[in-house]
Amino acid sequence: MGPAGDAALAIALDDVRAAAQRLRGVAHRTPLLRSRTLDALTGASVQLKAENLQRGGAFKFRGAYNALTAMNAEVRARGVCAVSSGNHAGAVALAARLHGTRAVILMPADAPVLKRAATVGYGAEVITFDRYRDDREALARELAAARGLTLVHPYDNPLVMAGQGTVALELLQETAVDVLLVPVGGGGLISGVATVAAALSAATDVIGVEPEASDDLVRSLRAGERVRVTVGPTIADGQQTPIPGALTWPVIARRVSRAVTVSDAQIREAMRFAFERAKLVLEPSGASALAALLAGVVSVPGARVGVILSGGNIGAAGFSTLMG
Amino acid sequence: MGPAGDAALAIALDDVRAAAQRLRGVAHRTPLLRSRTLDALTGASVQLKAENLQRGGAFKFRGAYNALTAMNAEVRARGVCAVSSGNHAGAVALAARLHGTRAVILMPADAPVLKRAATVGYGAEVITFDRYRDDREALARELAAARGLTLVHPYDNPLVMAGQGTVALELLQETAVDVLLVPVGGGGLISGVATVAAALSAATDVIGVEPEASDDLVRSLRAGERVRVTVGPTIADGQQTPIPGALTWPVIARRVSRAVTVSDAQIREAMRFAFERAKLVLEPSGASALAALLAGVVSVPGARVGVILSGGNIGAAGFSTLMG
Repeated sequence: MGPAGDAALAIALDDVRAAAQRLRGVAHRTPLLRSRTLDALTGASVQLKAENLQRGGAFKFRGAYNALTAMNAEVRARGVCAVSSGNHAGAVALAARLHGTRAVILMPADAPVLKRAATVGYGAEVITFDRYRDDREALARELAAARGLTLVHPYDNPLVMAGQGTVALELLQETAVDVLLVPVGGGGLISGVATVAAALSAATDVIGVEPEASDDLVRSLRAGERVRVTVGPTIADGQQTPIPGALTWPVIARRVSRAVTVSDAQIREAMRFAFERAKLVLEPSGASALAALLAGVVSVPGARVGVILSGGNIGAAGFSTLMG
Repeated sequence: MGPAGDAALAIALDDVRAAAQRLRGVAHRTPLLRSRTLDALTGASVQLKAENLQRGGAFKFRGAYNALTAMNAEVRARGVCAVSSGNHAGAVALAARLHGTRAVILMPADAPVLKRAATVGYGAEVITFDRYRDDREALARELAAARGLTLVHPYDNPLVMAGQGTVALELLQETAVDVLLVPVGGGGLISGVATVAAALSAATDVIGVEPEASDDLVRSLRAGERVRVTVGPTIADGQQTPIPGALTWPVIARRVSRAVTVSDAQIREAMRFAFERAKLVLEPSGASALAALLAGVVSVPGARVGVILSGGNIGAAGFSTLMG
């Protein structure tokens, strides 16, 4: 594809730069951490971008805050809504509170307890639905229409994608990487990250990492088109999306070299490694990119590797159960 | 006391500055992290100095590396030894490896598994002793004499004290604080920190935090002289020292305004808070200063508070047991 192809994509570098301006002084500039043990184990030079230390405990705050900030003030004042089982819920709730507006979040009844508590804690109204029986998109549309709220999609929203891309902007400002490992759910993070990498560091391979139970990106890249999968059970609750987003997919198809999968056991080992060696708390989805590196799913001897640790929202009890 | 009193102290600001030079590019400059939840809970503006993210998982690396670096090269080449149940053991082992020399560490047989494994992992020889029956000081002297090793004391060593003080140098370069909460064992960290605070930020109150089971500093400050206590059982394995050090005490007596104690239950809650809200792994001793703040043992509404999170060396299994 030529420039016309690029122009058809939902976001470009300037959108991410604009997001970075909006996030300045509000989102944390999260640290880039090293682990010599990790370097020794992988033969690579690894930099960990600790988005588990972001406000709200995950990168999701970047996209949500960018979307709310860019919104027309009157529209925003009427309130926002979102559908999410987890980190996007908390992120929208927090962004709404910072903007002094209300948030109503549709969460599945089986959403992780800590994530629901965080969302309520940020002042949002939470409405639960049945993950298996209810049509979440229809519920969201009805809710938005009935209450005059603006829906903030967790990934298929250019402002959300651009906000997530600021992770890569920070990372590439501080270090050069040959490979960048990025957890993938609906593709909001990786589409933003890959947009930045393509513009600022074209030689960097951006690799998506999914749980085996939800390998829609691997299959889509192989097929050259969006493929819908049946999501199986996985501990990676933040990555249970059946198909790449309509807006994220074209960006990913153009900018991402490949995607790989990791098992729940590999994710668990990465969480344990992060805990014991890096002293960092990662939730399963937040550890998936690290898992790909640690398990050797991606082999990168001699390379400079960036790994996005995308979130850390898990309770001490839940963690203990997973490690037991 | 006048300047004559200061001159009699084991360390001054220049010693800490010299340590910072030696540590440059070797020790991590650990991040200063914020938690809005913590600010809201305490009514203060809190900055967390994350020394759990230091090399070796604790601030101890600073002092050990400073001591080995300043050592005569021939002396260092013959090897070093230390007595420690935990983080100082790993720190000396790591510093020795970086200097290409050998380390022999005396560890009690009941030292935490992860800490012993880390010490061995860094290439040190570990000799175990019985915490209750053996005279560790005598053992260490015999070992040093028999093998020509130089003993690196965990806190009563000016180079160790100065190295630990670099924690405060970094903290005060980045932010101003009214109160600085510091975990206390033998006093190496707080003596270095208080030396820096006295020189660069005289209005800052440096407050020591001990486990209830080992309140020697609280009693010593009250008595105006070193008081020896019988150490009771506590989860804070890094703070089980019966008496302030001979070299650390004069510095502490002159520079530290007060000390407080926290219970094991308060430490456990601080570890849980760090895990769930700050996404940080803290070992019990590493969480004691945070515990004092969270439990309201130190009440600081409106103040700018620095908290040193001194270490994070605990296994996932051990953590799960403590949280259970």
